[in-house]
Amino acid sequence: MASPTRIEADYLIETAYDPRAAAEAMAGEQSSGTFVPVPGETPELKERSAARIEALEITENAEAPSLPGAGRPKNGDAPIRRARVTLSWPIDNIGPSLPNLTATVAGNLFELKQFSGLRLLDIRLPAVFAEAYGGPKFGVPGTRRLAGIEGRPIIGTIVKPSVGFGPQETADLVKLLCEAGIDFIKDDELQSDGPACPFDERVRAVMRVINDHADRTGRKVMFAFNLTGELDQMRRRHDLVLKEGGTCIMASLNSVGLVGMVELGRFTELPIHAHRNGWGYLSRAPMLGWSYVAWQKIWRLAGADHMHVNGLSNKFSEADDSVIASARECLTPMFEEKPCIAMPVFSSGQSAKQAPGTYEALGSADLIFAAGGGIMAHPDGPAAGVASLREGWEAAMARVPLADYARDHRALARALETYAA
Amino acid sequence: MASPTRIEADYLIETAYDPRAAAEAMAGEQSSGTFVPVPGETPELKERSAARIEALEITENAEAPSLPGAGRPKNGDAPIRRARVTLSWPIDNIGPSLPNLTATVAGNLFELKQFSGLRLLDIRLPAVFAEAYGGPKFGVPGTRRLAGIEGRPIIGTIVKPSVGFGPQETADLVKLLCEAGIDFIKDDELQSDGPACPFDERVRAVMRVINDHADRTGRKVMFAFNLTGELDQMRRRHDLVLKEGGTCIMASLNSVGLVGMVELGRFTELPIHAHRNGWGYLSRAPMLGWSYVAWQKIWRLAGADHMHVNGLSNKFSEADDSVIASARECLTPMFEEKPCIAMPVFSSGQSAKQAPGTYEALGSADLIFAAGGGIMAHPDGPAAGVASLREGWEAAMARVPLADYARDHRALARALETYAA
Repeated sequence: MASPTRIEADYLIETAYDPRAAAEAMAGEQSSGTFVPVPGETPELKERSAARIEALEITENAEAPSLPGAGRPKNGDAPIRRARVTLSWPIDNIGPSLPNLTATVAGNLFELKQFSGLRLLDIRLPAVFAEAYGGPKFGVPGTRRLAGIEGRPIIGTIVKPSVGFGPQETADLVKLLCEAGIDFIKDDELQSDGPACPFDERVRAVMRVINDHADRTGRKVMFAFNLTGELDQMRRRHDLVLKEGGTCIMASLNSVGLVGMVELGRFTELPIHAHRNGWGYLSRAPMLGWSYVAWQKIWRLAGADHMHVNGLSNKFSEADDSVIASARECLTPMFEEKPCIAMPVFSSGQSAKQAPGTYEALGSADLIFAAGGGIMAHPDGPAAGVASLREGWEAAMARVPLADYARDHRALARALETYAA
Repeated sequence: MASPTRIEADYLIETAYDPRAAAEAMAGEQSSGTFVPVPGETPELKERSAARIEALEITENAEAPSLPGAGRPKNGDAPIRRARVTLSWPIDNIGPSLPNLTATVAGNLFELKQFSGLRLLDIRLPAVFAEAYGGPKFGVPGTRRLAGIEGRPIIGTIVKPSVGFGPQETADLVKLLCEAGIDFIKDDELQSDGPACPFDERVRAVMRVINDHADRTGRKVMFAFNLTGELDQMRRRHDLVLKEGGTCIMASLNSVGLVGMVELGRFTELPIHAHRNGWGYLSRAPMLGWSYVAWQKIWRLAGADHMHVNGLSNKFSEADDSVIASARECLTPMFEEKPCIAMPVFSSGQSAKQAPGTYEALGSADLIFAAGGGIMAHPDGPAAGVASLREGWEAAMARVPLADYARDHRALARALETYAA
């Protein structure tokens, strides 16, 4: 896993032009960036700073252009071809800067007329990036230590309804969930510091419940408080969570943005639960945007400890293989000296039923497994819901079929009767 | 232009389900956010916090799903319909917070299985947002004052090649452009503070040239220095530009992100030239992502003074009507008390030829008109290139056909012979 000396990025492209000529246009736009020769643009200068095509493989033909607005070559009916292209840039063009990295590998590329499809598949970064950025401060071991959970997934849930609850109603729900044996609870991404449920009051009310429960049981439930907001607000909210004895904060990546997340990553003394809401607009068109494999690397380097990856048989439009590829990537080291491992967070329509498939595909239990209805809608109540998830994972990790394990595990048995997925 | 009391967002949706039921799923996901009833979720609570469908208009049928992964109703061959939907949220759900606004209007929506297409078209915000955020500090009048240009567009250009030039080579090019009579120059978005062209040295070298030129001519060319980077870097770079007598800074919106841009908007003492590189991944799939009309409002409120809008007959895939809609919106007031007008920046393959069409469609000369080849590739040199753009705009604003005006304006005449667009 030696790091490259140049910045590398893999793309899926679709073009009616010669794919190599189209790739050269990409490389030109993202380095010298000019379509007419200008004074001072010498061959030596180009050699020093130009983006380079490292690989190009034509994969298939497309029946029709995936995106509108693309040009066609003048000489008529060329096929529309798809190809995988790897470009590289000298690190000296930008230095180890994540914001400038995104402008380089994901800047003015996606609207180039040469392409009827362009998607960023992966990036590989020189080791200087690992020196310039902190990466996750807690990751898997730090999260496990604070949550007091080893050797199995952290079982989590989400405060629902997302909005409408005030601080006390939220705390009442948290009490019920603590008593049900939950490991981890998160705010919804729609709830941060609205007048209907102010952040400070929510933290105080919830932490009273969590601290009381910890005093009685010796186990402190991890609550990810959504501190998404302006920088000064996030600092203040972080400090309050820390002061009240909280063990996790949450932030919406697409709302905070890269510079804000890097700042948060620098000052936080708690794990960052990174929410990817909005991910759909970056990824759902198959021939446009970002693959999660590329995208999550940037946030891990910036300091995200937990990364949302959706879940198997989820309520959204994402396919299972994409979910698993995302989760695997979060657990794959980025640099030899600084692996930047983030804990993948599975959620959306999860119940005990998805445990075996998730474990089988991922080969790891270093994850947060979050369920809403999978806990709250269990016919025997939330405690049985939590128990059913733990039992599902016990079965999965022992490689015992759920139906067999359910014979003497009633919570699991009832879950198997109840949930569709 | 009274501001709404609730947050409002317009969407274009595409669904094989009953459009109203699908819109209700959107509203549910972005407020109560639960698919099974949970304890404590009362009708009163829903009434207080739920998102509401304000309008729904079915517009057309789609032949095939625009995006993969959508579900279909169980009862067979329902048509796939497109509709415009307006949702609204109580401001008390989030308060006047831009980061939380984006999680609400553009969060976990785009991947909902109900939809084979979902695009955010516009947003309208309660007046409390205008109190909470600063908006552009300079806008049109502040930019005109600093650039010393009134009554016509500011004629601009871009340092090319984007990368490869060191500080002195950049300054040499700037000298040539100053002597050619340019009003405005910007760094390329690929150039910020790489080892090959460090920011500080570039600023010092370029400002020496610009200050010398101002001493001689009384006119200070505006240079937008790309300070995109981490927060501390942006602060330091901003202070250096100010100290050296610079009059503009530039930042890449998608690289810096919202929290970083709000911070920059707060501390800047110079106009912010906001670059939209990466915009293609947010917008190029017609049934996914963001319209610029919605997107630019967020950045204007955060403090962007200049907003890139592409140009007519550009080298990218965007159609002309989309370019003009974007530019018009930047010049349309957002709030009665705080219009947040940003100066639209036209660029990409521009020459004198686009001036009449741009003026005709926009009805305003409050814009930055930037050309690269349109200046540098003019057959009589850069001074003639700049002159041809001014002459093109004189003709446009006097509503004289370019060919007529070119009879006694040689720079324009030669430009009309030279450029295709």
